Amino acid sequence: MSRKLEVADLDDIAAGAAVLGTGGGGDPYIARLLARQALLEHGPVTLVDPDEVPDDATVFPVGMMGAPTVMVEKLPSGDQAAAAVEALAGYLGVVPTHVTCTEIGGLNALLPFVAAARLGLPVIDADGMGRAFPELQMVMPSVYGLSASPMSITDEKGNRGMFDTPDNLWAERLARTATVEMGCRATISLYSMTGAQARETLVLRTVSLAELVGATQRRARAAHEDPVTAVVDVLGGRELFSGTVVDLSRRTTGGFARGTAVIAGVPAGSPHPPAARTHTATLEFQNEHLVLSARTTPAAAPGAGEPGMAVGEVLATVPDLICTVEADTGVAVTTERLRYGQRVRVFAAPADPRWSTPAGIALVGPRYFGYDIDPVTVAADRP
Amino acid sequence: MSRKLEVADLDDIAAGAAVLGTGGGGDPYIARLLARQALLEHGPVTLVDPDEVPDDATVFPVGMMGAPTVMVEKLPSGDQAAAAVEALAGYLGVVPTHVTCTEIGGLNALLPFVAAARLGLPVIDADGMGRAFPELQMVMPSVYGLSASPMSITDEKGNRGMFDTPDNLWAERLARTATVEMGCRATISLYSMTGAQARETLVLRTVSLAELVGATQRRARAAHEDPVTAVVDVLGGRELFSGTVVDLSRRTTGGFARGTAVIAGVPAGSPHPPAARTHTATLEFQNEHLVLSARTTPAAAPGAGEPGMAVGEVLATVPDLICTVEADTGVAVTTERLRYGQRVRVFAAPADPRWSTPAGIALVGPRYFGYDIDPVTVAADRP
Repeated sequence: MSRKLEVADLDDIAAGAAVLGTGGGGDPYIARLLARQALLEHGPVTLVDPDEVPDDATVFPVGMMGAPTVMVEKLPSGDQAAAAVEALAGYLGVVPTHVTCTEIGGLNALLPFVAAARLGLPVIDADGMGRAFPELQMVMPSVYGLSASPMSITDEKGNRGMFDTPDNLWAERLARTATVEMGCRATISLYSMTGAQARETLVLRTVSLAELVGATQRRARAAHEDPVTAVVDVLGGRELFSGTVVDLSRRTTGGFARGTAVIAGVPAGSPHPPAARTHTATLEFQNEHLVLSARTTPAAAPGAGEPGMAVGEVLATVPDLICTVEADTGVAVTTERLRYGQRVRVFAAPADPRWSTPAGIALVGPRYFGYDIDPVTVAADRP
Repeated sequence: MSRKLEVADLDDIAAGAAVLGTGGGGDPYIARLLARQALLEHGPVTLVDPDEVPDDATVFPVGMMGAPTVMVEKLPSGDQAAAAVEALAGYLGVVPTHVTCTEIGGLNALLPFVAAARLGLPVIDADGMGRAFPELQMVMPSVYGLSASPMSITDEKGNRGMFDTPDNLWAERLARTATVEMGCRATISLYSMTGAQARETLVLRTVSLAELVGATQRRARAAHEDPVTAVVDVLGGRELFSGTVVDLSRRTTGGFARGTAVIAGVPAGSPHPPAARTHTATLEFQNEHLVLSARTTPAAAPGAGEPGMAVGEVLATVPDLICTVEADTGVAVTTERLRYGQRVRVFAAPADPRWSTPAGIALVGPRYFGYDIDPVTVAADRP
């Protein structure tokens, strides 16, 4: 059912989208500031249920491209998002009727509302992934054979670009280099589609899901319950590790924030910290979390101890959502906000099942990212 | 006066344009092959005198961007040039009436004929520079305040791009990174203008000049006269150095072919090689030759000798044309064809006088390229 989104609705969506962003998608605080400003200036924005979108609607997904590490220092201008939609619509000679999300990550979940507020358009309650992924072709419409191009790209300096490419990987390559040159952060509109295509190829009602995750977190905190467990239950996921960030390597390279975080602590399910062994989990990311693996280091004089975890065991991989949250509050920690000494809990949640098809795995599975391992999922745990 | 250009006319234009390209502009042999093929397929192309272009003509300059070192291995497709014009015209919603040259370098002097043949359009006898320069904003229309953007960029893989930028330097930056990603060689159309603007802002009748240079060379060779002296006279230039290439550093970086050539030999004007000193000239280039300087190294036991050249004297700089030709044939040697042991002669010729205005020097003078020296020109030598 369609409804008007007001400024007061933004907080839950931003908090929930940061969880669904699995470490990426851009900072939710900046997202909230941008969306709040746009709604205060232009009034509430209509969130449309996918069932209410006409088949012949002209739908324009819009989002940020680049490294989240840069976005927290170089803030996007509000004009950019609307300009990206207008540039692509002008190129296609089409009047846009709806805007939607490329990904339901922190910043990218709310940026479409900034564009929509300025353009006076509704936003479809959906996104291209049901999570966040680092490269532009990693959206469900690619699985259905839709084309990313023609696509527009804009920056805060007034640059406008347009790419029309023979395949989606070329769109990613050309847009990525332009993004780097524009200062490692740009706004794009791509995969323009009809309403019928949106209903078939997008992951549906994920803005509402983000809102539910945010509200669940908020209510659990108010009731002095564990907000992490509450969210894990909503997403049908499983908690995997809890501990302290003891090492962090993060670099902004090739238009991405890449790196590794090492967390020392306790695998989920251990009743109390084992005395004789050191457990560490390693989180690898490229904007978003890609792989979580755990390692058990025997102590110098190993005691009888309880049975430890397998050495170098892979706990979770893409396409599952691998989410890192503050241990106490359950607030999502994006990769650019990870810091030494931070106490975090890590859980995984199943992705849209279409990501587990051969076509989905080819696009976003661990091997695409250079990890020679099969996908590991918590999906089988679901009731 | 307008006339039809046939396949037989291409050789002189290609040879002369290679001289005017001052080391850059792309390989004239490949240019001739491409243009020959296009004219054989589509028939002769009309070369229009600027005086005969209507004020309201819609003029589309077209050329190659990238490193000439790459262009000799990765040949352009004939379709790309026409596609660049069509893409920009489509974006602007304008029907093109004329094509013209961005620069009168080897490949770039003839590529517009490839586009024109395919599109059935005439070529205006003019170019943006009266020579070749490495960056896209280095054209006379920039001096007059015309905008490079919107501009199109195409490659042989079917990629099409469009940039609309707040200034010409941003057009260069975004197009350069796209060019590198496309494989260090792309085709662009930019600075679209009216016929009146073309007449005012371009360097006029340079296709005819290239043809004259090529014909002069050919006739001198046939008459067993010195083709180098003959061409230097036509261009009102001066020969500066002659010798053998003894060192060469050339790298393809940042979308350019950059490097240095050291020539050991004789400064022009020396009646015979001085016994007691070693003379070397250093040629610095970024696609095109930028600076020629000479150095005199005293021999181990210096004799009385004749008066040598000043140590590290700058003989020529941009915006003058610095041309390197084979010592005997006068055939232009582009930077990617320079090789160890080659016998060459180097001469300078004055550029269009508008390049010596403050606006021109700011755009293409030695300081723009990082040389903290004033321009050195042979223009004063002209009668």
